[in-house]
Amino acid sequence: MAVYTQVSDEALRAFLAAYDLPPLLAAKGIAEGTENSNYLLLTAREPYILTLYEARVNVEELPFFIALMRHLSDKGLTCPQPVAGRDGEALRELCGRKAALTSFLPGASVRSIRPEHCTELGRALARLHKAGQDFPLQRPNSLTLTNWQTLLSGLESRADEIKPGLAATLRCEMDFLAGHWPEDLPRGIIHADLFPDNVFFIDGKLSGLIDFYFACTDVLAYDLAICLNAWCFEDHVSFNVTKMRALLKGYQEERALSARELQFLPVLCRGAALRFLLTRAQNWLNRQPGALVTPRSPLDYLKRLTFHQQVESVSAYGLEDAA
Amino acid sequence: MAVYTQVSDEALRAFLAAYDLPPLLAAKGIAEGTENSNYLLLTAREPYILTLYEARVNVEELPFFIALMRHLSDKGLTCPQPVAGRDGEALRELCGRKAALTSFLPGASVRSIRPEHCTELGRALARLHKAGQDFPLQRPNSLTLTNWQTLLSGLESRADEIKPGLAATLRCEMDFLAGHWPEDLPRGIIHADLFPDNVFFIDGKLSGLIDFYFACTDVLAYDLAICLNAWCFEDHVSFNVTKMRALLKGYQEERALSARELQFLPVLCRGAALRFLLTRAQNWLNRQPGALVTPRSPLDYLKRLTFHQQVESVSAYGLEDAA
Repeated sequence: MAVYTQVSDEALRAFLAAYDLPPLLAAKGIAEGTENSNYLLLTAREPYILTLYEARVNVEELPFFIALMRHLSDKGLTCPQPVAGRDGEALRELCGRKAALTSFLPGASVRSIRPEHCTELGRALARLHKAGQDFPLQRPNSLTLTNWQTLLSGLESRADEIKPGLAATLRCEMDFLAGHWPEDLPRGIIHADLFPDNVFFIDGKLSGLIDFYFACTDVLAYDLAICLNAWCFEDHVSFNVTKMRALLKGYQEERALSARELQFLPVLCRGAALRFLLTRAQNWLNRQPGALVTPRSPLDYLKRLTFHQQVESVSAYGLEDAA
Repeated sequence: MAVYTQVSDEALRAFLAAYDLPPLLAAKGIAEGTENSNYLLLTAREPYILTLYEARVNVEELPFFIALMRHLSDKGLTCPQPVAGRDGEALRELCGRKAALTSFLPGASVRSIRPEHCTELGRALARLHKAGQDFPLQRPNSLTLTNWQTLLSGLESRADEIKPGLAATLRCEMDFLAGHWPEDLPRGIIHADLFPDNVFFIDGKLSGLIDFYFACTDVLAYDLAICLNAWCFEDHVSFNVTKMRALLKGYQEERALSARELQFLPVLCRGAALRFLLTRAQNWLNRQPGALVTPRSPLDYLKRLTFHQQVESVSAYGLEDAA
């Protein structure tokens, strides 16, 4: 949560001259997202979000994300809609960085997640998966099985600093997933990071999805597994079956899951838990003493992984067994 | 620049229930101010700023700041106007912190300062000084001569880590100022931190002043000296006489400076340079490796101090000598 690039008023006005926008009243750097700098632009009419893409974003992938947000908006999904300049370009430069202007989504993320929120989330996720089916571009997931292997190799020697025995647990899980990962399930565009921070609500109704910068082409049900981990566990990592049922119910109202997708859900949940466990472990081991942003503990995701390892079939998630 | 306290949507809505406000559309943590957490609230009508006061603010002093902003607003100054709840209270609690809602000021701070900006600043500063004359509360400046002494004692042994010889320079200047500081000049409410970040402009016209949390009762011309240091030096700390004349011209259009105030301006500028040199040196010596916010180098203020030490009379600032 930071503004990495300070944009002067002068530079901003020069940048905005390329657009047909209402007069600018103020621009405020906002604490949103961890990878990029974001400014909220207040104008005489509607607000906009200005994003400057920082070092960790691969600029060659930006056209994919911009095109995806435009495609999903055109299909009726409420997500940030790229705003093009008078020349038709949505991706420009500002302060030595690639930058894009998008529409502003009203709403707020929720802390106290209720089952109704999970139903809304499930519906929106399935709509996203359906809307992505005819999106013409592809982006391989840079955080899937083979990359987990690379991540693990990089931190294996230090994993026990986080918790004794963690390296062995991670290696064992990696071997299991390498032998059981279902590559042949229905694929398409997934969000891949649909945590509560990235979902806005107004009065309990889902009002929009943001932060598409992990979106990629992968197994659709894996996206559901990421959401299940992010939305259906309580404090102390206890599993809330009611929320899980609500999530699945919402999803299946829009897109029915096949028996095979349901059958593999426990494995997908293990993979999703391992993916966030690995990246959080890496951030944790590389944390700087005294840094303002404390990395999240990886251990919450170890507990999720342990939960899913004990699951024998999808019935543990509160569903009818698909077998 | 940070948001130290994360306010959940639920907590925010409960907090706002005490006010008569238009429906809330969104709340965004903004990167503004270094001491407190600030949120921009977008509503169906005008925006508001919500400030949560963090540990470094003395909560007993908050009523002074709230009353001052209200007084100055009532006198026609454009500064954040505290918004009271239905019970008449402007100072409340949120997430275990004191919190206040204020009006939102449009505009933006300028990076490329032109002389016209300095004229506008001078006028606004003098208007602030006049509007503060009948403000009934007092707050001693906690960063004046006697406190500099304390600050210096705390860092004297390590000052040479910043630059060899700095400890001796600071001690020598402290002794000079202790013998020459003019306590008997006209006093009143001063802003005490009117850096470019805290002054908003729209189309070259000053649109508002923010961040009154260093405001106090002190020598009025000392406030001008702080502005002179903050606004009238170029990169590499060269002095811009044109900007200084513009600042003084704007100020004197609203409030004439006495011959004695002008005579002591060089000493006040030395004091203002020492004050920021000392606090920046302290932050620099206490900086955390790897912290997101890099403290500003104190040496820019050492250069300003050196400049003012060589000034023999106010004519060096581009003015007629008052003597």
